[in-house]
Amino acid sequence: MAVGAKPPWRSRPSSGDSPGTRETLILVAGQLMTEKGSPEFSLGELSQRTGLSAALVQYHFGSKRGLLMALVERGTQKAVAQLKALEKMEASASVKLKIHVHGLVAAYANAPYINSLLHLMIGNTSEEGARYISRIFIEPVAAFYRSLIAQGVAEGSFRAIDPMHFYFILVGACEHIVVRRQAWRHVFGVSLEGEALRSTYADTVYQVVLNGVRK
Amino acid sequence: MAVGAKPPWRSRPSSGDSPGTRETLILVAGQLMTEKGSPEFSLGELSQRTGLSAALVQYHFGSKRGLLMALVERGTQKAVAQLKALEKMEASASVKLKIHVHGLVAAYANAPYINSLLHLMIGNTSEEGARYISRIFIEPVAAFYRSLIAQGVAEGSFRAIDPMHFYFILVGACEHIVVRRQAWRHVFGVSLEGEALRSTYADTVYQVVLNGVRK
Repeated sequence: MAVGAKPPWRSRPSSGDSPGTRETLILVAGQLMTEKGSPEFSLGELSQRTGLSAALVQYHFGSKRGLLMALVERGTQKAVAQLKALEKMEASASVKLKIHVHGLVAAYANAPYINSLLHLMIGNTSEEGARYISRIFIEPVAAFYRSLIAQGVAEGSFRAIDPMHFYFILVGACEHIVVRRQAWRHVFGVSLEGEALRSTYADTVYQVVLNGVRK
Repeated sequence: MAVGAKPPWRSRPSSGDSPGTRETLILVAGQLMTEKGSPEFSLGELSQRTGLSAALVQYHFGSKRGLLMALVERGTQKAVAQLKALEKMEASASVKLKIHVHGLVAAYANAPYINSLLHLMIGNTSEEGARYISRIFIEPVAAFYRSLIAQGVAEGSFRAIDPMHFYFILVGACEHIVVRRQAWRHVFGVSLEGEALRSTYADTVYQVVLNGVRK
């Protein structure tokens, strides 16, 4: 990168300023974490992969932490938009549950770093910060579950399970495949990389939870 | 601690050598992690709480990591003994499942640091080490599930669910209450400390999984 009289990372970011650079840094940070399976990449690695100066991270995000936060917010916004679209779909609660479970398993399998990342962000932050991360990440999912259960109960297909319990069971089951991804290999001798395994697991989670909450 | 001519932490540990000290260090390390909700305690804190020199950790366990490993192994041995006793019990697969789920939820709620601890141990070790930890921690549970499902199928109460899937769903649901324990407070406004919440959650997990695998 050329160094000018007024390096961009010393000036204040303005809207419309290098959206491509921000996007690239977020995208490649995600790729690095997926490859490593953890958020432990260095800004040097990011710089090498993107061809962009590490100082641009500071300029655009303040710090590596700010970059990770932007990545979490970006991923969350996308996921929340999908949940809202699913909530409004013309479909039964069972069908929505099936689509959601397959989406959730795929999301975790595609971003196996997400659990370590949240762990890191929540662990190294204030009470206020932990509350914020919990809320942007969990509240929209809990809201979707409240609506889904209400629909299922109205249709006569679900019993009135506590949405909080539903949240901890369903997300726990889906998240667990990445939390213990070493176990797939070491204990069960299979790899999470394969599409087939993800899809079979998602089917099983859907069947167990659907039967589990059936009236 | 009195310092003698030949400090015990310079001599080689022999069987029967200070079993009380080893036990105390393991026990208090567990207490500190429970209070903090993470394995991030210092040897200084451990020393202050036990009144024992921090050098005794090196003598008995080689390092803090060795102490944590001893704690994991101790906890695992106890849990495996309980699983084996449960497996041999004269009871239906459904009753065994109920006892197991309540035990699992209680175990996680009583040792909320366990997930961070495993995360830390698996993350900072060799491939060989990760395999070892996965196996001592997961293999016995998977073996219990194989036996439980076979019994349930033989009794006509369970369908033949894949024990690996069963493992990831059930343990994921139970572990999730400590992985996201901030969420109980921040999103749902309840505390995991209460007996009632644990018990209600365990009941729900049992009902959902039992209905979920029912033939």
